[in-house]
Amino acid sequence: MPDILFAAPALWPEYETVLAEALAEAGIDARLVTEATAPGEIDYIVYAPSAPLQDFTPFTRAKAVLSLWAGVERIVGNPTLTQALCRMVDPAMSEGMVEWVVGHTLRHHLGMDRQIVNPGHVWDPTCPPLARERPVTVLGMGALGAACAAALRALNFPVTGWSRSEKPGCLQGEAGLAQALSTASILVTLLPKTPETEGLLNADRLALMPRGAVILNPGRGALIDDDALLAALDRGHIGHATLDVFRVEPLPQGHPFWTHPRVTVTPHVAADTRPASAARVIAENIRRGEAGEPFLHLVDRKRGY
Amino acid sequence: MPDILFAAPALWPEYETVLAEALAEAGIDARLVTEATAPGEIDYIVYAPSAPLQDFTPFTRAKAVLSLWAGVERIVGNPTLTQALCRMVDPAMSEGMVEWVVGHTLRHHLGMDRQIVNPGHVWDPTCPPLARERPVTVLGMGALGAACAAALRALNFPVTGWSRSEKPGCLQGEAGLAQALSTASILVTLLPKTPETEGLLNADRLALMPRGAVILNPGRGALIDDDALLAALDRGHIGHATLDVFRVEPLPQGHPFWTHPRVTVTPHVAADTRPASAARVIAENIRRGEAGEPFLHLVDRKRGY
Repeated sequence: MPDILFAAPALWPEYETVLAEALAEAGIDARLVTEATAPGEIDYIVYAPSAPLQDFTPFTRAKAVLSLWAGVERIVGNPTLTQALCRMVDPAMSEGMVEWVVGHTLRHHLGMDRQIVNPGHVWDPTCPPLARERPVTVLGMGALGAACAAALRALNFPVTGWSRSEKPGCLQGEAGLAQALSTASILVTLLPKTPETEGLLNADRLALMPRGAVILNPGRGALIDDDALLAALDRGHIGHATLDVFRVEPLPQGHPFWTHPRVTVTPHVAADTRPASAARVIAENIRRGEAGEPFLHLVDRKRGY
Repeated sequence: MPDILFAAPALWPEYETVLAEALAEAGIDARLVTEATAPGEIDYIVYAPSAPLQDFTPFTRAKAVLSLWAGVERIVGNPTLTQALCRMVDPAMSEGMVEWVVGHTLRHHLGMDRQIVNPGHVWDPTCPPLARERPVTVLGMGALGAACAAALRALNFPVTGWSRSEKPGCLQGEAGLAQALSTASILVTLLPKTPETEGLLNADRLALMPRGAVILNPGRGALIDDDALLAALDRGHIGHATLDVFRVEPLPQGHPFWTHPRVTVTPHVAADTRPASAARVIAENIRRGEAGEPFLHLVDRKRGY
């Protein structure tokens, strides 16, 4: 009978019932605790990178640290973490991400803001182009990026995908990135935060985009150089940025993003982990660990995600 | 060699080239004229219901009147029109309609307006429900309604379709309508305008909808009783209405829809006929007429569409 430590105290009320249910469904008879009185006896740690637990040394028997978050940049570099680390790939989170990305893509594609805020009561029946005439680029073609690209393609948007690792049908490398940016009428950034992706969208790369292009960032705030983005927005080179993630969250009052007329702030809602479905992913990984099968969503420490 | 009268003078500049190309592509050698000096020799009339031509009596040989509009309510009752009448079902129009309907459905589903207009810089990270928890009803499951329902279902929205004529998988009749309205978190009205659908959404039927439901009307302005809708919006029973079509267009300055905080006016842009693809539909119908094959999109005079 495995011992499971739930080490994300703030999330316990949401997970207490659904995690017990998911373990029972997976046929796992486990002891689920929220405090490690005997760390050496813990087999699995369910974890959130914001949790107080930062020293994994005493967990000598733990087979895996199972994160409830998709992004692991706050924990992947922890030198005490020698156990297997799995990140969350929650099907419900992917659904939420697709809805946010498709929704904001269509919002900008259709030019909805002109109609949502129209104090002059302007009736301008100019039709937008069709989606098939509106190229979209997705940077980052992992589980979330690929799901967004598929949903956008189903609506006829021509989608270019760019990935840091080699993926079929995706552009790659610096030359591929230049090509992906230069054709993007709408750009979706869904890369993980790693040392290589930090500030990826800098002034030089923003300058490669077509004038008036729109940026949607539901990935990580650090992917974008904020000052370079503000400068590109100021001169109208970038037409609009709809941002869901920021270097500091909540976005501080007084940050220029709040008041810039070409910026929409959404409060980190693009993709939320849903306890019921996340608990099933955790339970499946514990089942795999007990059965000696490979873990799902194992983090590659070298790549950082 | 058939004689074709293009009787929509305002649209001629857009169609002159693409219609000639579409006829050539369809292998039709035709005489295409814009004025009927000898009406008795015209075989086909390409038509827009707003066109000056209203007396079809002299066109004794015409096999069909081929409308460039999807809606034929302005012409279907014309007693001089004894020829076959075909309405436009343009694949590009359907694409545009799907984009408008899916875009505004996601806009309301995600609660985007709160973020697009957020003068208080409120950071409220409450996630919306997932699409699969947001029931959508589509009234009118013809070519456009069915395409919208399919696209919404592909994004996991549970879609209920209601149709005036019997269709597989659709609700029907007054009891079916009551059921379709009572479950709709978001309602899309895509019925044709006929004597039966005029004012369909009246006070009684609006009262059947759940409190806070959203209405999207890209169909016909006359489907909705404007005063009943305004009253339901005033008391918050209907949470929002996004309207693309109106009884009078452009929507007159001073109309309460322009200033109502729960109404978004879009200027009849949901579905535009695109000349290139519409011309191919016209050419195909002329090919069918010449080959003695049944016309596409023939209007049923009794149903009125």
